[in-house]
Amino acid sequence: MREREVIKLLAEKMDIGDDCSVIPFAKTHLLLTTDMLHRKTDFPDGMDSYTIGWRAVAVSLSDIAAMGGKPLAVTVALGAPEFERAFIEKLRDGIIDCAQHFDVSHFGGDLDQHEELTLVSSALGEATKPILRKGAKASELVCVTGELGRTGVALEFYKQKDLETANEMARFAPRVKEGLALAPFATSMMDISDGLARSLYQLAEASKVGFKIDMGALPFSVEAEELARSQEELMEMCLYTGEDYELLFTLSQEKLLDAKRACEFVVIGQVTKESVQMKLGADLMELPDRGYEHGNNKPRRP
Amino acid sequence: MREREVIKLLAEKMDIGDDCSVIPFAKTHLLLTTDMLHRKTDFPDGMDSYTIGWRAVAVSLSDIAAMGGKPLAVTVALGAPEFERAFIEKLRDGIIDCAQHFDVSHFGGDLDQHEELTLVSSALGEATKPILRKGAKASELVCVTGELGRTGVALEFYKQKDLETANEMARFAPRVKEGLALAPFATSMMDISDGLARSLYQLAEASKVGFKIDMGALPFSVEAEELARSQEELMEMCLYTGEDYELLFTLSQEKLLDAKRACEFVVIGQVTKESVQMKLGADLMELPDRGYEHGNNKPRRP
Repeated sequence: MREREVIKLLAEKMDIGDDCSVIPFAKTHLLLTTDMLHRKTDFPDGMDSYTIGWRAVAVSLSDIAAMGGKPLAVTVALGAPEFERAFIEKLRDGIIDCAQHFDVSHFGGDLDQHEELTLVSSALGEATKPILRKGAKASELVCVTGELGRTGVALEFYKQKDLETANEMARFAPRVKEGLALAPFATSMMDISDGLARSLYQLAEASKVGFKIDMGALPFSVEAEELARSQEELMEMCLYTGEDYELLFTLSQEKLLDAKRACEFVVIGQVTKESVQMKLGADLMELPDRGYEHGNNKPRRP
Repeated sequence: MREREVIKLLAEKMDIGDDCSVIPFAKTHLLLTTDMLHRKTDFPDGMDSYTIGWRAVAVSLSDIAAMGGKPLAVTVALGAPEFERAFIEKLRDGIIDCAQHFDVSHFGGDLDQHEELTLVSSALGEATKPILRKGAKASELVCVTGELGRTGVALEFYKQKDLETANEMARFAPRVKEGLALAPFATSMMDISDGLARSLYQLAEASKVGFKIDMGALPFSVEAEELARSQEELMEMCLYTGEDYELLFTLSQEKLLDAKRACEFVVIGQVTKESVQMKLGADLMELPDRGYEHGNNKPRRP
């Protein structure tokens, strides 16, 4: 089975449609999420252990951010073929620095001998009003924070062996502050960890809507535009590569100004009744529904 | 480095001494824990995927129980070489059945292609007064729930290819009810997932005390006594094998009767000022400080 089919099978009996599990608790909601990263698909050659530790925490904090939550605690389960002091020390520091940067001061973990370096982070968060993937309505605006293509660019730098730049770019900042700022306005939200295209389809499916995306409005990163040798390569980097951790969300027209005052983002299109389309000049085409998928045997490392 | 050294290295900057991270929240405490299980060391040949799913959840619920907490939610990150329908369905059902058996109705997860079958469960719990490993005082009683040797026995059945019995025994019940019942009385507590011997040393170290254990009082399981071909083998199964998930705890003499009314357990010895000793008839010997260690290259599967 492919990943999507497995998820469908799990969803028959589990409530797994959002970035986090939502647990009503003491007049608020607790958020719980978990993410598995491992050598073969997630750590390109040249990614240092500080960056690996940072990313392990960051991907889970991004899930909390994606629901408009405030992170409270993080755990990391580490499986490694051997425990080498310098490696572990830097990994630990990457974990701690990322967590503390986002005001998380509670850590836990587990340790295991494992043939392949594997890190699984879990994050606990809180949100009085969690923003789900479900909730977008036709004629609302669809928006995204930050820039697209950061991970595509980082992978390019890993290939070119400019490791300092690559590692720096790979240590992305999960959009915790932005998620909290947007929570009062967003009608639906998620992070784009599987790529913008795939994420649009996931949001459309959960909300039972469509999108019309304005290609000209997409915030491609300057580096991606410089590095890409063609329009196709730019699209590949910015729409389909995955591992960008910006927030994709919808809001009603009336909330636009208030939301803009709270947080930087760009409007990339409109919510429609069905299908996910891309507008390029006068042309309107169906956006290909593809992106990073964990179960398709196609590793994402370069 | 060996696992203990790594933990020391992590503990320099992280607070990782207990079964869960403890997060003060809304006049109570949230508990967060994570556990990694994988094919090579945790799933003997013949362990079915329902049992694998059950155990993945159970080990994390045991950590919540070990602090006297009530479990609220569970996530499982699954990495597998391939997603085969029957395997995944049973795995899912094992996860759900174990969680629901302990009144947990919130699930989450992540999915990944991974060369080795790897499950990482995380559990969220709550405790108004979490019981730490630190807190035992000299002259208190040291006690354990249930029986010792269950996993040693299960491994023996896997070896003998009596898979039905083996899988049934491997689906242990984490001591959630017992942990909650003991929380008002216990001065220190943990589960004995690394084996009774190793756990006694961990509790001793955290509480800065010693123990005098009465060998004659240890609740060896009947099956372990039947299966063991020698006293040494019985000790191996019941004290050093690890993966028993009973609760080890201390309480003051005065609380003994109240605690006994709340929960079944046996007193196995006394808290002393230092060293972990075992009394066998008139002999008093130092208990060997060994047990299951994840980082020592010694797989625990048979």
